[in-house]
Amino acid sequence: MPVYTAPVRDTRYIMDHLLGLERYSNLPGFENATPDMIDAVLGEGARFCEEVLAPLNRIGDEHGCTRHEDGSVTTPPGFKDAWEQFVANGWTTLSAPEEYGGQGLPHVVSTAISEYLCAANHSFEMYNGLTQGAIASILVKGSDEQKAKWLPKMVGGQWTGTMNLTEPHCGTDLGLIKTKAEPQSDGSYKITGTKIFISSGEHDLSENIIHLVLAKITGAPDNVKGISLFIVPKFMVGDDGAIGARNPVTCGSIEHKMGIHGNSTCVMNYDGATGYLIGEENKGLAAMFIMMNAARLGVGLQGLAQGEVARQNAVQYAKDRRQGRALTGAAEPDQKADTLFVHPDVRRMLMEGKALMEGARALILWGALQVDLSRKAQTEEERETANDLISLLTPVIKGYLTDKGFEVAVNSQQVYGGHGYIREWGMDQFVRDVRIAQIYEGTNGIQAMDLVGRKLGQNGGRAVQALFAIVATEVAEAKADPELASIAAGLERATGELQKSTMWLMQNAMTNPNNAGAAAYSYMNLMGIVCLGLMWLRMSKASAAVLANGAEDADFHRAKLVTGRFYAERLMPEAGALRRQIEAGSESLMALPVEAF
Amino acid sequence: MPVYTAPVRDTRYIMDHLLGLERYSNLPGFENATPDMIDAVLGEGARFCEEVLAPLNRIGDEHGCTRHEDGSVTTPPGFKDAWEQFVANGWTTLSAPEEYGGQGLPHVVSTAISEYLCAANHSFEMYNGLTQGAIASILVKGSDEQKAKWLPKMVGGQWTGTMNLTEPHCGTDLGLIKTKAEPQSDGSYKITGTKIFISSGEHDLSENIIHLVLAKITGAPDNVKGISLFIVPKFMVGDDGAIGARNPVTCGSIEHKMGIHGNSTCVMNYDGATGYLIGEENKGLAAMFIMMNAARLGVGLQGLAQGEVARQNAVQYAKDRRQGRALTGAAEPDQKADTLFVHPDVRRMLMEGKALMEGARALILWGALQVDLSRKAQTEEERETANDLISLLTPVIKGYLTDKGFEVAVNSQQVYGGHGYIREWGMDQFVRDVRIAQIYEGTNGIQAMDLVGRKLGQNGGRAVQALFAIVATEVAEAKADPELASIAAGLERATGELQKSTMWLMQNAMTNPNNAGAAAYSYMNLMGIVCLGLMWLRMSKASAAVLANGAEDADFHRAKLVTGRFYAERLMPEAGALRRQIEAGSESLMALPVEAF
Repeated sequence: MPVYTAPVRDTRYIMDHLLGLERYSNLPGFENATPDMIDAVLGEGARFCEEVLAPLNRIGDEHGCTRHEDGSVTTPPGFKDAWEQFVANGWTTLSAPEEYGGQGLPHVVSTAISEYLCAANHSFEMYNGLTQGAIASILVKGSDEQKAKWLPKMVGGQWTGTMNLTEPHCGTDLGLIKTKAEPQSDGSYKITGTKIFISSGEHDLSENIIHLVLAKITGAPDNVKGISLFIVPKFMVGDDGAIGARNPVTCGSIEHKMGIHGNSTCVMNYDGATGYLIGEENKGLAAMFIMMNAARLGVGLQGLAQGEVARQNAVQYAKDRRQGRALTGAAEPDQKADTLFVHPDVRRMLMEGKALMEGARALILWGALQVDLSRKAQTEEERETANDLISLLTPVIKGYLTDKGFEVAVNSQQVYGGHGYIREWGMDQFVRDVRIAQIYEGTNGIQAMDLVGRKLGQNGGRAVQALFAIVATEVAEAKADPELASIAAGLERATGELQKSTMWLMQNAMTNPNNAGAAAYSYMNLMGIVCLGLMWLRMSKASAAVLANGAEDADFHRAKLVTGRFYAERLMPEAGALRRQIEAGSESLMALPVEAF
Repeated sequence: MPVYTAPVRDTRYIMDHLLGLERYSNLPGFENATPDMIDAVLGEGARFCEEVLAPLNRIGDEHGCTRHEDGSVTTPPGFKDAWEQFVANGWTTLSAPEEYGGQGLPHVVSTAISEYLCAANHSFEMYNGLTQGAIASILVKGSDEQKAKWLPKMVGGQWTGTMNLTEPHCGTDLGLIKTKAEPQSDGSYKITGTKIFISSGEHDLSENIIHLVLAKITGAPDNVKGISLFIVPKFMVGDDGAIGARNPVTCGSIEHKMGIHGNSTCVMNYDGATGYLIGEENKGLAAMFIMMNAARLGVGLQGLAQGEVARQNAVQYAKDRRQGRALTGAAEPDQKADTLFVHPDVRRMLMEGKALMEGARALILWGALQVDLSRKAQTEEERETANDLISLLTPVIKGYLTDKGFEVAVNSQQVYGGHGYIREWGMDQFVRDVRIAQIYEGTNGIQAMDLVGRKLGQNGGRAVQALFAIVATEVAEAKADPELASIAAGLERATGELQKSTMWLMQNAMTNPNNAGAAAYSYMNLMGIVCLGLMWLRMSKASAAVLANGAEDADFHRAKLVTGRFYAERLMPEAGALRRQIEAGSESLMALPVEAF
């Protein structure tokens, strides 16, 4: 059975030494996030995840969800009890505004907790994660009445949320959706249509389920410009907040999936269900994108989380399992064999896991801080800078980090040899669960196109130029320090490849947009390498400074320096290959007729 | 439901244009392999795989195998009928010697058929594949009496075979095995111990199961030098060949695995079971390696096969599914959306699949021809050259091609978006099934160590120097031809990286063996890139020649030229990054204490 230990030490390290959270204590929400408060939240969150959620993870995988003939859905044994504790302990309320019952804590704090939740139990976390996304949309686009009516119980966890985009014939291409919204005399709409792949669409955890649904209002343009967003509750809610009649929205079936069995993935049938327009008519896509962007960061976090729990177990297995001898001679001659840890190729997988996941954690928490700053920083300029950065980084965090999370989960399974393939060891579940993160909320190919086709050129490339400037400054500061030379040089080189690739795109994508499409995935990976490289430069710098001042836990900081060097030596060289792929253009990629495949 | 079409056209192309099989018609076995005979075998094999085995693939996944209280195991519905047809049609006999009832066909022909078998139904093919491996060991190491007694029914498919190496505490490190063999007065042995992960260990397909078992004879050294190999039948066999009493070898349980559910993976308990020594005492590992080497090529083939069937289905899905518009403007304005095929990033995944799998097929069939030539070529020199090559290539074929098969299966699943994650579409099964190929028969990390630690230096590096010479000659011939310039230049560059890496290893691995271990995986990948590059150069050259002569199926050959160029432009650049990883050495990889992970 796999185990999980929340990486509280590393989270604190990033908050204290990389983000310098205390610098923001004058901002709303941050004033409550005192070091003691953060310690308490992380510690309690860790305990809940380790003791309550992690033991349910395999149970969820084995049992899955069950749909009954009446359309109701039962979650796996233990999920309902765990949800009740989860709600009772206030974990749904962390970063929601205080006026709706939230604790108003910074997003960066709730993000840290979300990593633990998701690592302990990906399927369970999704019931909460989608609710938080729905809250975000209503907060930004809902009317004051809608906020007052729907948010308190969603924030409180009595009600959960969903997002309903996909239909059988369309996922990415939302212009094709067929779900209809017919205006009623009371200002509401009757929603009719079928939605598929609805995570947490029906279940037994909460009193009510608040579906956010994309539909086309009668007479609206039959394309993306005719999409509106609606609140469609499972149960009607009176003006007094009391639960009323069942709304005709039902779960038609649940999907049998490769993984995340503990989450109910539903086909939802809307048969003239009552819905309430959020925001303006035909502006549903923009409203949904608020939810999508939050969700995409959350999915990137899932990549980190599953990679992290997989690597933790692989590390433990490599400590326990004895097989073969060190190449340099027996490490423990009194034992019949050495541990797996002596083998360089096993270490390769474990070091890559460590370098990628610790780098990912730093990037995600830095990204989460940008979300906070984009809303709460004191000047418009600071808010804009933060918003630029997080807009640029969102597809990289979603796409690159879920790919790396999958890779680390697969390699961690590999450390187990044949035992990794046997279900009782639990490693295959991490691989199967994390696989979805590369697919949903926009496949990673869509993320790459979002990055190259949309984010890169926004405001004349302001965001990517800002990123280059950050890197250039920090590299210049670090280059002379021998402790940082390796990671600084690696980052400078990789950033050079990214800059050349950006230039190539500017020169070649306008004349032929397929050059952008052909380059997009490699470009996203290249930016991922640069971003993690920047994180490793920062960690190396921070730890070198701590060590110079005589640290208590010197081993922790020395490990950061070694891992940063490893990252530079072994993972950054790919940057050059990626640039060559980008510069290859689209000719041979697009040349073959379809029949030739 | 996924479908499968055996790539007969491509197999024939490789046999005719790359391998020039007709040149070997003077060799034993090859004289029967006339073009008509090969056409008949490939055509009939394709039909059986497409119509009988492929439809059982998902059934096998859903039903799995069932162990009953008496230790018997039932295979999934339809498997037994299919096995009977398989045996009746003589598919088990293809390349076994005629004196034991085989057809004596070249290994390259049976390898081509094995690809189709494995693509159609990986789990089913394993019942046959392990039998062929057991036949190979008995052929080489068994006495004439043993061959006469055991082989005819194994070749005929009435009996199947297994290989029993792994025990609960040891897989890779076979020196640790505890299974005991106690000599009996009649020359037989009593075998006692527990073996795990025994594929096809118990099932209902055949009359008898012939287990090849590694055990230590009483008093033998308690390390790899004390291992012997035994034949242990499920049922005793009389001198007249009649089935006798049950031998006390039983299936204690079957494993619940990530994939290959249709194959029974058994814990086998040997309770004083009668066994017969094969070959010499304490020389069991060498005997087992005959089986292992055959099995490793077969596992490489599984990587190709599963990648191929996955990519075929992804191609079909990309033709059918309409989503979004071409970046260059609507390709089919009369439709509501264009097909997935217009999107460069979807094409990226499909072109990589095509380039990798067609290259893999060429490499595997070339390797299979070396197996034939190592046994049957007319001169000792030719046999030695072929043996050098296949020894060198075996870990690359097993390790690199299973990694690439997995990658292609994952990317093919990705093409489906959310539908790829839903079991009914069948794409997740390819991913789950092919995953085992990276693990069993020696993990891919072990393959990399076999390549770098053993194969590279054998006979003073004769094999790798021979490979370099082949590449140099063919690049030199091709460079001047503008049609071949791109792939020739790519191959020259990648081979340069491989040569530099080889040199680096010679200079740095002796002083510190961890440098070899740290480099091994990257080196294996680098050699894989060079080998597939050589195949693409050969295919490009062959197709250019056909086109110059005015081909009937010009589209097929033009596609080879485009795909070769794509391979050079998009997949070969990784070579440089791999060399840099290799030259990074082992310092940062080995530096951290275990506690720091």
